[in-house]
Amino acid sequence: MIDNLIDIVNNTKKHNPLIHHITNYVTVNDCANVTLAVGASPAMADDEAEVEEFVNIASALLINIGTLNKNVKNSILKAVKKANELEVPVILDPVGVGASKFRKDFINELLETYKISSIRGNISEIKSILNLSSNTKGADASKEDLESIDNTLNIVKVLSNKLSLVVAITGETDVISDGKRVVTIKNGNYLLPYITGTGCMCSSLEASYCGA
Amino acid sequence: MIDNLIDIVNNTKKHNPLIHHITNYVTVNDCANVTLAVGASPAMADDEAEVEEFVNIASALLINIGTLNKNVKNSILKAVKKANELEVPVILDPVGVGASKFRKDFINELLETYKISSIRGNISEIKSILNLSSNTKGADASKEDLESIDNTLNIVKVLSNKLSLVVAITGETDVISDGKRVVTIKNGNYLLPYITGTGCMCSSLEASYCGA
Amino acid sequence: MIDNLIDIVNNTKKHNPLIHHITNYVTVNDCANVTLAVGASPAMADDEAEVEEFVNIASALLINIGTLNKNVKNSILKAVKKANELEVPVILDPVGVGASKFRKDFINELLETYKISSIRGNISEIKSILNLSSNTKGADASKEDLESIDNTLNIVKVLSNKLSLVVAITGETDVISDGKRVVTIKNGNYLLPYITGTGCMCSSLEASYCGA
Repeated sequence: MIDNLIDIVNNTKKHNPLIHHITNYVTVNDCANVTLAVGASPAMADDEAEVEEFVNIASALLINIGTLNKNVKNSILKAVKKANELEVPVILDPVGVGASKFRKDFINELLETYKISSIRGNISEIKSILNLSSNTKGADASKEDLESIDNTLNIVKVLSNKLSLVVAITGETDVISDGKRVVTIKNGNYLLPYITGTGCMCSSLEASYCGA
Repeated sequence: MIDNLIDIVNNTKKHNPLIHHITNYVTVNDCANVTLAVGASPAMADDEAEVEEFVNIASALLINIGTLNKNVKNSILKAVKKANELEVPVILDPVGVGASKFRKDFINELLETYKISSIRGNISEIKSILNLSSNTKGADASKEDLESIDNTLNIVKVLSNKLSLVVAITGETDVISDGKRVVTIKNGNYLLPYITGTGCMCSSLEASYCGA
Repeated sequence: MIDNLIDIVNNTKKHNPLIHHITNYVTVNDCANVTLAVGASPAMADDEAEVEEFVNIASALLINIGTLNKNVKNSILKAVKKANELEVPVILDPVGVGASKFRKDFINELLETYKISSIRGNISEIKSILNLSSNTKGADASKEDLESIDNTLNIVKVLSNKLSLVVAITGETDVISDGKRVVTIKNGNYLLPYITGTGCMCSSLEASYCGA
């Protein structure tokens, strides 16, 4: 397991995979930098006319709906379709999915139509995808949702099983599952929510290692 | 007065108000971080299809026209209308309003159609709203406009009276008025104009405290 | 020559030229800050309705296609046309031009229709403009393309001659030519590619000094 992890980290540095992002304009700069920091290479094009060509040279595709709009929606659909054809892994960051029907409908459409390799979100976002009542606060997890780690361990397993993909719920403790195993990572920090984009950067990291 | 200020600061940390931003892509990351830094929570959605839902859960709405475009214009109009219906305070940052007819017309439309709680800008922007001749330099205040603090004290009162709202003119000395009282804050620094987004961040701060 | 350089640096600080950017949302904040750092003033408007007015008050226009989309394409065409009419210098940063037909066609259209004063890119981008085979990696230069400095010295001269403009190929060693002379600058650092936006910031610097 540890050997495997070190291989992934080293392979990313060695192969310098291109990670295509269709992401939000709030945290995009930090996402590009975190991708570079682990040895991958970020691309951030989002026009319908060119996303397929970017997916064509990419090792992973990251979809982040932080500032979703109707133009970008079409680009995402095209890019994910292409990624599925080429078997490029797709990482989905459902930012603020519980905050609007626009986001919820789009995430449902994506999950019903295409193959997503992994979803990474905070506990409020993941609960919202499962239609569990959640006290969403825009893009941030609510305090109520953060309270029970047992609940999180259960939810991560239910969603990964239901959708047959890897689900990562990040927070002070990260909880990750492929539907069978559940892994927790406890090196988070209570201050992370006070910096914008820490969740988005986790998704870029996941996509970077996934593309290696 | 001081007690009041401390209450506002503490209430923001305690109640963690959601501040919905429709803002520009130049300084948006710093605006998110300054909002988090004072204990509020930023949201940055700007598609017409969802801004009303975000206003619905927000404690304040911040409109910043730094990279205004025709799509975002419609989103702003919808969001401000909704905010007025729900009595959510609206803070307006008229970035570079003197630089184009597009911005000037839009600010006029906003001020004539909806109730704005407060405007925060630099001296060149505020003069432009009053149709006073101003040497605008894109989004930055011009040197000519910055010269006379007496003039600024007068202008802030005229505009706040005329529009019946709070006007804040920020710079090395901040000047704020509700039409009756005028307050000056002298803890600015001459180096602030050499970092982008210091004005935008002041608007996010005002919105954060206003939402508490 | 040195005297000249010092004059340019001092003139930028003295005259505080407005540099209008139509640029990408990934690195825009750093571009604004680097522009301010050398004493120029950035503006970043990109709606069709107002770009001409911004060019009208600008000392230089910087076009960066990092997140090109169809709306911004029209704004760029209008802005460059206006800049040519007013003899405002136009700096072009052809980010990732080799990565898609959308970008390639647009750069060709720009170069065929309007007068561009200077192009600044990495070696992969410049090779792509010359239709030389290049191993493009999204917005980053590929390792293969970076290998031969002799080749770079040749390419910079060929392109600047062909298009009659100044070409700057930046990297660990910067290579610049006006078609006759070739200048190399060797104060780069091998770590620069590990931070996003270092190329974009070079273009903002060039535009800032060009506008002085």
